[in-house]
Amino acid sequence: MNKFTMFAKMTAHPGKRDELVRLLLESSQNLEDMEGCELYIINESVDDPDVIWITELWRDAQAHADSLKNEGVLAVIQQARPLIAGVEPIRLRPVGGKGLI
Amino acid sequence: MNKFTMFAKMTAHPGKRDELVRLLLESSQNLEDMEGCELYIINESVDDPDVIWITELWRDAQAHADSLKNEGVLAVIQQARPLIAGVEPIRLRPVGGKGLI
Repeated sequence: MNKFTMFAKMTAHPGKRDELVRLLLESSQNLEDMEGCELYIINESVDDPDVIWITELWRDAQAHADSLKNEGVLAVIQQARPLIAGVEPIRLRPVGGKGLI
Repeated sequence: MNKFTMFAKMTAHPGKRDELVRLLLESSQNLEDMEGCELYIINESVDDPDVIWITELWRDAQAHADSLKNEGVLAVIQQARPLIAGVEPIRLRPVGGKGLI
């Protein structure tokens, strides 16, 4: 399986999480037609009011790399940047389980 | 939305990750018929040879709590315990995005 998963832990500046979530939700519209993007789920941390975790599942690493050249995606990254205090990306290889497409 | 997501970062004892992954894959069979379990994806870390991340999505927190009373699930937890050096659970609230059921 060559699928590519990325978890990204995003920490918003204090009080900015809601705004960041709204922006990410809007931007996930860009991904609806992007065939190589199989999951892009935005999660709020229950225990940390500034933290968001994004679950991404891509057809392969190339599909993920290509998405970062998409104009809509780049525009969102620019808009989101001032709201974000830090990002910790975690690169993963899904091996199986329930619900993997 | 009352859905409940949990990421669990599991660190295997050195050299034990493959065995732990095999066990978790087998055990994910228990979840196939469990209606409240919508996703249970097992991922290997690309950058750390001992680390697994599990992505769980449940109908609600109660469905997750109930699963921990399932005999098959409890048996796997017992078998897995000697292979695991540590677990870091991260409680999340999914808010939207692509692919959320």
